Amino acid sequence: MSAPAPLIRRAAVEGLGTAALVVVVVGSGIQASELTPDVGTQLLANSLATVFGLGVLIAFLGPVSGAHFNPAVTLAAWFTGRSAGEGPGLRDVAAYVPAQVVGAIGGAVLADAMFGRPLVAFSAHERWAGHLWLGEVVATAGLVWLVFGLARAGRAHLAPLLVAAYIGAAYWFTSSTSFANPAVTIGRTFTDTFAGIAPTSVLPFLAAQLLGAAAGLGLVAVCFGRPATADQGEVVVPHAGQQPVAPTRSTEESALA
Amino acid sequence: MSAPAPLIRRAAVEGLGTAALVVVVVGSGIQASELTPDVGTQLLANSLATVFGLGVLIAFLGPVSGAHFNPAVTLAAWFTGRSAGEGPGLRDVAAYVPAQVVGAIGGAVLADAMFGRPLVAFSAHERWAGHLWLGEVVATAGLVWLVFGLARAGRAHLAPLLVAAYIGAAYWFTSSTSFANPAVTIGRTFTDTFAGIAPTSVLPFLAAQLLGAAAGLGLVAVCFGRPATADQGEVVVPHAGQQPVAPTRSTEESALA
Amino acid sequence: MSAPAPLIRRAAVEGLGTAALVVVVVGSGIQASELTPDVGTQLLANSLATVFGLGVLIAFLGPVSGAHFNPAVTLAAWFTGRSAGEGPGLRDVAAYVPAQVVGAIGGAVLADAMFGRPLVAFSAHERWAGHLWLGEVVATAGLVWLVFGLARAGRAHLAPLLVAAYIGAAYWFTSSTSFANPAVTIGRTFTDTFAGIAPTSVLPFLAAQLLGAAAGLGLVAVCFGRPATADQGEVVVPHAGQQPVAPTRSTEESALA
Amino acid sequence: MSAPAPLIRRAAVEGLGTAALVVVVVGSGIQASELTPDVGTQLLANSLATVFGLGVLIAFLGPVSGAHFNPAVTLAAWFTGRSAGEGPGLRDVAAYVPAQVVGAIGGAVLADAMFGRPLVAFSAHERWAGHLWLGEVVATAGLVWLVFGLARAGRAHLAPLLVAAYIGAAYWFTSSTSFANPAVTIGRTFTDTFAGIAPTSVLPFLAAQLLGAAAGLGLVAVCFGRPATADQGEVVVPHAGQQPVAPTRSTEESALA
Repeated sequence: MSAPAPLIRRAAVEGLGTAALVVVVVGSGIQASELTPDVGTQLLANSLATVFGLGVLIAFLGPVSGAHFNPAVTLAAWFTGRSAGEGPGLRDVAAYVPAQVVGAIGGAVLADAMFGRPLVAFSAHERWAGHLWLGEVVATAGLVWLVFGLARAGRAHLAPLLVAAYIGAAYWFTSSTSFANPAVTIGRTFTDTFAGIAPTSVLPFLAAQLLGAAAGLGLVAVCFGRPATADQGEVVVPHAGQQPVAPTRSTEESALA
Repeated sequence: MSAPAPLIRRAAVEGLGTAALVVVVVGSGIQASELTPDVGTQLLANSLATVFGLGVLIAFLGPVSGAHFNPAVTLAAWFTGRSAGEGPGLRDVAAYVPAQVVGAIGGAVLADAMFGRPLVAFSAHERWAGHLWLGEVVATAGLVWLVFGLARAGRAHLAPLLVAAYIGAAYWFTSSTSFANPAVTIGRTFTDTFAGIAPTSVLPFLAAQLLGAAAGLGLVAVCFGRPATADQGEVVVPHAGQQPVAPTRSTEESALA
Repeated sequence: MSAPAPLIRRAAVEGLGTAALVVVVVGSGIQASELTPDVGTQLLANSLATVFGLGVLIAFLGPVSGAHFNPAVTLAAWFTGRSAGEGPGLRDVAAYVPAQVVGAIGGAVLADAMFGRPLVAFSAHERWAGHLWLGEVVATAGLVWLVFGLARAGRAHLAPLLVAAYIGAAYWFTSSTSFANPAVTIGRTFTDTFAGIAPTSVLPFLAAQLLGAAAGLGLVAVCFGRPATADQGEVVVPHAGQQPVAPTRSTEESALA
Repeated sequence: MSAPAPLIRRAAVEGLGTAALVVVVVGSGIQASELTPDVGTQLLANSLATVFGLGVLIAFLGPVSGAHFNPAVTLAAWFTGRSAGEGPGLRDVAAYVPAQVVGAIGGAVLADAMFGRPLVAFSAHERWAGHLWLGEVVATAGLVWLVFGLARAGRAHLAPLLVAAYIGAAYWFTSSTSFANPAVTIGRTFTDTFAGIAPTSVLPFLAAQLLGAAAGLGLVAVCFGRPATADQGEVVVPHAGQQPVAPTRSTEESALA
């Protein structure tokens, strides 16, 4: 794993990982709404399934592509690293972002198929209100604060656990149930189920997410100061595409051998 | 633990571990359906108990037998390692798979006994539909993608945490609630309770699981490329039967000492 | 922490830890039954609170006393170590077991006090049936299999996470909701609330627990063979009373620094 | 990260972290009470969101400020370290505590805003009873026992996981649902929602929390004896303001790389 994976493989992993994430989010939402009429229990199931699934995807695929699975993260990584020549370049961005969006749509279609629903049915779930947009700003700001704060402090290896736990909390503490991801937001228009969002509600969500990402970078600067090391480019987790990592048994084994 | 355990002990551990897994799955299903009428709450309890129990079993017994507890995993390990002379040989497969099936049946009988149910009562729960079979393909593909991807990347020591979390998510995001295991599927025909499956529904589930396992190996090749090290044979977790592992206090201690 | 703590401190920690464990079990049971009429949701809350509380207690107090908090574990540790002169001696047993029982009773009284209930009210909850006793055999066998198997394999440092997870699963997969602890069983007679057990139901539970402990030691022998190292005496977690452990920052830090 | 952050940055992190904690507690309480009528399910969601959010905040911001987020912890750290010249000085206390209180109020206002509630509405939720005050004594005693016991044993790096798990249990096993934090208690008067507390109920809660903190320090002395190392000043987690910590990839990576 010490040589960077070729860009095409890294982009494929971003697409497959984002697809899997949407399968988890949409599929568990359908299952939950089929099994219980209590919306609180539905969101409990949906959020716990997402914590488990997202943590697995980041830990498992992160070493190949970095496990962004999110254009807001990819763009913020490009933005913060562009002057120092670190992080993803424009060529990476141009491969990652479309792969994430296509993957997210594919994931929604696959989830619908698994539950015998129409493969493509645009959501009728309007999510249009000022306080929901504020929720998306907060959700994305918190995510970017966490991911880039960890990178700044050289602790990006904790991201699988902490990003998953963060999203599990944010499903509950934000009014929007924390989309916080432009690709996933677009993917979720393609399913008329629990986790869907009406296409007409998407644009303000994307704007709020980008605003939140900028706010999150501001929080990183307040809390962690200016970067001192090259580690900052390693988001979400250290991966071969950014900097060679040669995990040895003696250190890695200790997590839960 | 540095010398491989004899095959008979490894097969016994596979049988006991699979039995314990089925006790957890079937027993928690019975308890949940006795305590609440809400099927969502039932699956929440069933899935969390499975996450806890499966994680413990893999972490605890993995160093002896590898903690397959699943013929699909054993067969895929044999298939991927056969040309390089790695992984389990045919003799191991011939011992592991029957032990897993017998263990799974025994686990279902013990769970029934603990709850005062008839020891053997074939399930009347029909699970027969195309979208359920697609669910099983997805569930098993994801499991094999994860297990063999971790092995390929030399990170199989994370399997106890990640495989348990994966199954916890897959209970919810697949329409079939993720059997993903031929031995457990057969065992679950022997109980007419929450987690049961009618014997007549078994064959398509097994076929879907094998198809999913093949698809999972394809995803491993796409995401991780061709194997470069001998680590690939170590599934689900590194164990003495494959390659001597001599954990030292200084490394292992760090997990949660 | 490298010198053993004096016996009186270790016994005090066993008493306080067992008291805290019963406070968690009984208190969360009262809270849950006050907040919801759904018994499934009650056990979900009760089991998750126990997982969190027990994991904390073992990780936190284990380095002082070993974190037995359970006469079945203390007796099994004495039994398995007695010929080799390892593990606790009779003097330790005579201090630990009474401390555990007194602590358990005190914990039940404190939980009742926190919720404005009568400080001592014997439970009227009959738990008397053959299948419940089988549940207790299975619950205690699994606990002893896990604790002593980890010790045998030199992996007792994983006990905080794995024992807590095991109990979380066993609440659900055993018909008795897994008392698996003679001291806690006695303590739970002192509260007439969700987690109580009628005094008249105690004796068969204790007998089943001792039988289960013996069965668990048998499973350890089947799965792990005869002991090869002195590590076997370190249950539930390595502690200064058994063998000096000098954790260094460089290794321990890695858990979640 | 090896040089201490300036006090102004550390105080800002304490304020932002406490704000985020209150956003999680109050926001998830509002969401839960909007989605389900079952109060047990509400507290389940509220407690799980708090476990996830608090664990993330301690792990993420702890290396900068220590992640107190709680005047009771800051005061206890000053009290125990004052004679040895360790821990926070009075100047640190004078910066941390106001930042925590202001942050907590800001967090309540932001949570209200996200859910379209009045920005400031004092809670009408009376929490006034002797058994609730006993609950707060127990909750805070347990928290201080844990935090300072870990510091005394040189294991403060486990605090993110263990403090979060402790609070998750304490929500359930204490009758007061475990405020255990004077700043958060004050902040929670500013929202008339699930997690609110009437201003008239605050003073006895604060008194109970200080009494509990003292009791917790007593338990530390009983269980861990007198301090032997300078590590005691590092609460909640080791941070640069107390003692330089230079995490190296080789050790930190092992948590979940």
